[in-house]
Amino acid sequence: MKKLADIGLIGLAVMGENLVLNMESKGFTVGVFNRTTARVDEFMAGRGAGKNFIGAHSIAELCASLERPRKVMMLVKAGQPVDDFIELIIPHLEPGDIIIDGGNSHFPDTIRRTKYVESKGLLFIGTGVSGGEEGALLGPSMMPGGSPAAWPAVKEIFQAVSAKVEDGSPCCDWVGEGGAGHFVKMVHNGIEYGDMQIICEAYQLMKEMLGLSADEMHDVFKKYNEGDLDSYLIEITRDILGYRDENGEALVEKILDTAGQKGTGKWTAVSALDLGIPLTLIGESVFARCLSAQKDMRVEASKVISGPVVDKTIDKVQMISDLKDALFGAKIISYAQGYNLMMEAAKEYGWNLNYGGIALMWRGGCIIRSVFLGDIKKAFDVNPDLQNLLFAPHFKEIVEKAQAGWRRVCATALTNGIPVPALTSALCYFDGIRSERLPANLLQAQRDYFGAHTYERTDKPRGEFFHTNWTGRGGDTTSRTYVV
Amino acid sequence: MKKLADIGLIGLAVMGENLVLNMESKGFTVGVFNRTTARVDEFMAGRGAGKNFIGAHSIAELCASLERPRKVMMLVKAGQPVDDFIELIIPHLEPGDIIIDGGNSHFPDTIRRTKYVESKGLLFIGTGVSGGEEGALLGPSMMPGGSPAAWPAVKEIFQAVSAKVEDGSPCCDWVGEGGAGHFVKMVHNGIEYGDMQIICEAYQLMKEMLGLSADEMHDVFKKYNEGDLDSYLIEITRDILGYRDENGEALVEKILDTAGQKGTGKWTAVSALDLGIPLTLIGESVFARCLSAQKDMRVEASKVISGPVVDKTIDKVQMISDLKDALFGAKIISYAQGYNLMMEAAKEYGWNLNYGGIALMWRGGCIIRSVFLGDIKKAFDVNPDLQNLLFAPHFKEIVEKAQAGWRRVCATALTNGIPVPALTSALCYFDGIRSERLPANLLQAQRDYFGAHTYERTDKPRGEFFHTNWTGRGGDTTSRTYVV
Repeated sequence: MKKLADIGLIGLAVMGENLVLNMESKGFTVGVFNRTTARVDEFMAGRGAGKNFIGAHSIAELCASLERPRKVMMLVKAGQPVDDFIELIIPHLEPGDIIIDGGNSHFPDTIRRTKYVESKGLLFIGTGVSGGEEGALLGPSMMPGGSPAAWPAVKEIFQAVSAKVEDGSPCCDWVGEGGAGHFVKMVHNGIEYGDMQIICEAYQLMKEMLGLSADEMHDVFKKYNEGDLDSYLIEITRDILGYRDENGEALVEKILDTAGQKGTGKWTAVSALDLGIPLTLIGESVFARCLSAQKDMRVEASKVISGPVVDKTIDKVQMISDLKDALFGAKIISYAQGYNLMMEAAKEYGWNLNYGGIALMWRGGCIIRSVFLGDIKKAFDVNPDLQNLLFAPHFKEIVEKAQAGWRRVCATALTNGIPVPALTSALCYFDGIRSERLPANLLQAQRDYFGAHTYERTDKPRGEFFHTNWTGRGGDTTSRTYVV
Repeated sequence: MKKLADIGLIGLAVMGENLVLNMESKGFTVGVFNRTTARVDEFMAGRGAGKNFIGAHSIAELCASLERPRKVMMLVKAGQPVDDFIELIIPHLEPGDIIIDGGNSHFPDTIRRTKYVESKGLLFIGTGVSGGEEGALLGPSMMPGGSPAAWPAVKEIFQAVSAKVEDGSPCCDWVGEGGAGHFVKMVHNGIEYGDMQIICEAYQLMKEMLGLSADEMHDVFKKYNEGDLDSYLIEITRDILGYRDENGEALVEKILDTAGQKGTGKWTAVSALDLGIPLTLIGESVFARCLSAQKDMRVEASKVISGPVVDKTIDKVQMISDLKDALFGAKIISYAQGYNLMMEAAKEYGWNLNYGGIALMWRGGCIIRSVFLGDIKKAFDVNPDLQNLLFAPHFKEIVEKAQAGWRRVCATALTNGIPVPALTSALCYFDGIRSERLPANLLQAQRDYFGAHTYERTDKPRGEFFHTNWTGRGGDTTSRTYVV
């Protein structure tokens, strides 16, 4: 009797192909299917040749090739295709079998699909898979959520293929019920947007203000990567700045400066707005991509609008050191904001999130992997009820120390006309969260003045609302009575 | 035979009560209804006594009291109540009658309701009404959209009750089809969030950095209001800072510094994210409200996290002048961003928006009314195809002149640890839009490095995509083939 496959995968594009090669290399037999079945044959004759793969030309064939409980994983385009495949898969499964969505699905869809698939007597997992092309092959970060009963059945495979940190811990653990896995993956992607944007701002400052060459910047990022900023994104930035094209010129400078943003970064910002959490660094990072996409408008504006002359006498060594502080400070703020968002989501959706575990899942394999995440894990080990990363003595001290250089970077950039929206936004958040008193008292007075919205007072208990007839005109009706 | 009413209104809360008093004062007879009918009796015996109102105790009665085509306006809580009332009203109307939603409805709902009500042979208007309590009474700004055939029937009433600018033009005109009226009202509210936030930041700087008293700030805002910043919000800020409580103390300082944000400001930011438009100042303003609401966390953070010592030797006169420039510069950016959003929405939803007309609708009656809006109207009169307000010579020159002071404000605030998220965000946008080259080339290189997302090149035509195998590892499959 032919051996059955341990897991089946639908979708042999770049991520799927690499992920199944990874699974097979860990000793698992994998069934593979692709809607365009020529791709299956191509794979079986190519990178999959002579390995423990079972090629399938239909979903029925794929499901028939699987060990029970069947585990059918999709790596297909997020949205309708996932729902379509779920419908196609269901008839070929039996109670207790598991459908896994490994794509970039939006967490409300995963909440809905978990309920739906469970209503059919099956189990569902929506898992974030991060690490891109290379991560999928060599060990991604995986963030599974959905039906808790499904976890024991996939744990061995998932943790085997996932990245490992130095001590061997897998960058994969159970995140939580329903959409928790995809939510945490979404926040991961938002943080990725932020990390990329602050690196880009540092690059812009080095290039436009300090006049550094690609080679010089390559060296700077190489040094950054040997210190506290040690991370995958700093590492690839170093490599990108060092990459020469066929003419020996820096390829990065020939790349068009327009980026897309229709994805998970945007969802993270929208989710923050919905939950009322100040996720400013990521928000600015998404908007920075929007502005980058308005290339024609920028080209036109650059011709007619003048700015300050850039001061070319700035102390380069100091600024490079300050930039390191700015990157580190802003990065801590971004993670503090991201964790704040996850905490609010956990409250809102009733998830028990393992905050330290999440840092460990991100610690390796994924785009935002860095040494720094180990410190976040430690902070939650010390205090599982940590309300804000900035309250952890380790991070508080780093940011307090980093702020002098960070402030110089922002002030210098704004004075010299170099845009640093994410670095400054993070600094304003830092100064805002440190402020016992923000100017929202004036804002509440304005709202009460023009809309009778009422306000609370500092000398009265919370929950008691006051209205002032500021003008002596208008009625005494407050907007709290604005119901019919 | 008893005179019929010209229009009927459902919802006698603060806005509704004042709006019908306004209508009646212009010579119209108004039918009034409220779900809690005691409120109708109270109104008829109170502020409505002896005037041309017809009190109704049921929707049937209200509709029977109206001249044809019947115009039934709702001023009720946005959301389900609007749909509920539409269902209750429809049976009492005849073809050609008009249902009007004057609440703060979300524009996608208005798009949907317009189609639905039209499917019943009736007409629908979703109109923004701005100006708060006092505006409703004395002349609001009104932004109607929906079924174009309904406009001629309500034009006379709407323009009569609306605010007027100096030359007598009404602050009300037809905005466009479907949800256009509520979309423009939403952007108005977003801009209102932004205008309020930058004023709050200026106040915070004056108080925390310059150490000004409420009286001194009252004088500063009084002077601001006599110049280019002349506007309703500056005017009420002046009044609020001058308002003393029963102990002769500045009331504003006793108001709790926490603001809500669950409304239209958030919608504006989400809409910008959806449409890919960098609406940074409003985005930061919404997030600033979120941070203000995290009062307990801020109090705790203020006790443990240290920042820089504020430099008390700053030249106050210079800084007050610089703050004026910062406010003016940031305000122009906010409107430039808001108009950019409306232009993208018009493309997306197929509306023909009258951009100059919108400025005129906002010119009086509403919360953001200001002299400045007249200049926006003029800019579109000169160039109806203006792509960005900053391309209008008038605004370009103002911002170019304002930037020196504005940069000093932001640099000083960041150096001294005073949060100014909206003022800096706007400045970063200004520097970003002026940048022919933003660092998104590095970002695209990163995305191609880790996810094979491909990039365009500056030396090749747009639409041609390239992938580099940056590491020499991984496959040649790009994410553009990531479909099954």
